[in-house]
Amino acid sequence: MAVILITGGARSGKSRRAEMRTRAFPGQPVYVATAEALDTEMEARIAKHRARRGADWIEREVPLDLVGALVATDGGGARLVDCLTLWLSNLMHATRDWEREVTELAAALPRFKSPVVLVTNEVGLGIVPDNALARLYRDAAGTMNQTIADVADEVEFVVAGLPMKLK
Amino acid sequence: MAVILITGGARSGKSRRAEMRTRAFPGQPVYVATAEALDTEMEARIAKHRARRGADWIEREVPLDLVGALVATDGGGARLVDCLTLWLSNLMHATRDWEREVTELAAALPRFKSPVVLVTNEVGLGIVPDNALARLYRDAAGTMNQTIADVADEVEFVVAGLPMKLK
Amino acid sequence: MAVILITGGARSGKSRRAEMRTRAFPGQPVYVATAEALDTEMEARIAKHRARRGADWIEREVPLDLVGALVATDGGGARLVDCLTLWLSNLMHATRDWEREVTELAAALPRFKSPVVLVTNEVGLGIVPDNALARLYRDAAGTMNQTIADVADEVEFVVAGLPMKLK
Repeated sequence: MAVILITGGARSGKSRRAEMRTRAFPGQPVYVATAEALDTEMEARIAKHRARRGADWIEREVPLDLVGALVATDGGGARLVDCLTLWLSNLMHATRDWEREVTELAAALPRFKSPVVLVTNEVGLGIVPDNALARLYRDAAGTMNQTIADVADEVEFVVAGLPMKLK
Repeated sequence: MAVILITGGARSGKSRRAEMRTRAFPGQPVYVATAEALDTEMEARIAKHRARRGADWIEREVPLDLVGALVATDGGGARLVDCLTLWLSNLMHATRDWEREVTELAAALPRFKSPVVLVTNEVGLGIVPDNALARLYRDAAGTMNQTIADVADEVEFVVAGLPMKLK
Repeated sequence: MAVILITGGARSGKSRRAEMRTRAFPGQPVYVATAEALDTEMEARIAKHRARRGADWIEREVPLDLVGALVATDGGGARLVDCLTLWLSNLMHATRDWEREVTELAAALPRFKSPVVLVTNEVGLGIVPDNALARLYRDAAGTMNQTIADVADEVEFVVAGLPMKLK
């Protein structure tokens, strides 16, 4: 079934666009959150997203085992993964082998029965960060985005709430 | 009349593109600058923009009361607002309620008789800033851009001087 | 002959796209590297790019005299310049007059017999850097990208490995 990647900058309207694309599929939509409510800034953001989505979503909080969560929820409605860049950050903090995990996700995506809509961020269009860890992260994010875009059926780049079709 | 939003990165050719779009409307063009010449870096930039535009523009320097300036100049030639992200920054520094001001601008824009061309910046496509204030600002800029794009008749994203049509 | 500019963020797939475009021209391709292997991070990146490209490229390492290298290699296969933003950074570190060098490059490009594919980076879509030197650099990069895009026959913006045609 369909694999759709929605990319863009911070507060570009990616999540809203991804919610719309997810709801367009039949069945009860599943929200796969990679965020954990670890601080108040994150809590506020999660609450705001939930209020906008409405109460009719099945919710899963999955900081690390994304493929497992997609396997477990396959066969029902479309899944919205929000977002891949946070998942990557979680993997790196947990010192997991992110390259292997991204490769496994890319291999798994085309085999699911239910659609998957994935949100990610573009983080490589600013000045090169001073910080070596930040450089490592933005390189990893770029590599991940290319890998997932490669297996996606559709890729959209959202700017100011408006999607551009990349694929 | 027409509301046109021109977005893009720093030195992407947004202002030049916006000047061209503004001049294409009949009447004497109005330049609504949200910048104040507070330091020499900013002074130099303002002087450079003015030299390129030419002397035939009516000029208004409006750091905060943008809607007021657009009301006051309505009925004549097209207005070029350069730029919204600096206006947002001015509002935040003055601890004004930026969300209300952005909502008021969005409500006012479709009602003007003379066209309005607005320049804004994409600031959310780099690494998440360390600084909480910078995160707040980039989130606010993203929200503002979505809100204004939503009421605009046309939206262009400029990269390397070349516009992509978003709407 | 053809002048093609490929722009995008870090790890967006620009180099791979540029390699593909360069190989599509007849003749032995020429790789004009503006990078010098000054540290291990850079060495690793250069080695990775070389492994992907394969051994059939003529290689030139040119940190500063880009126009000279393009003149010297003209008449054979297509040249891939990777990348302009690093060249700009080299010019600025060497306190060369980058504006003059960019103007000279723009003047030379349309006159070559062999095609030139140039890779550059978008660095102006994040938060304004605190650092004055970083601001100067991102302004210079934006100006350079506009200048080269202006003389290019084709310009592509690559996101997540996927090109958008700008020109």
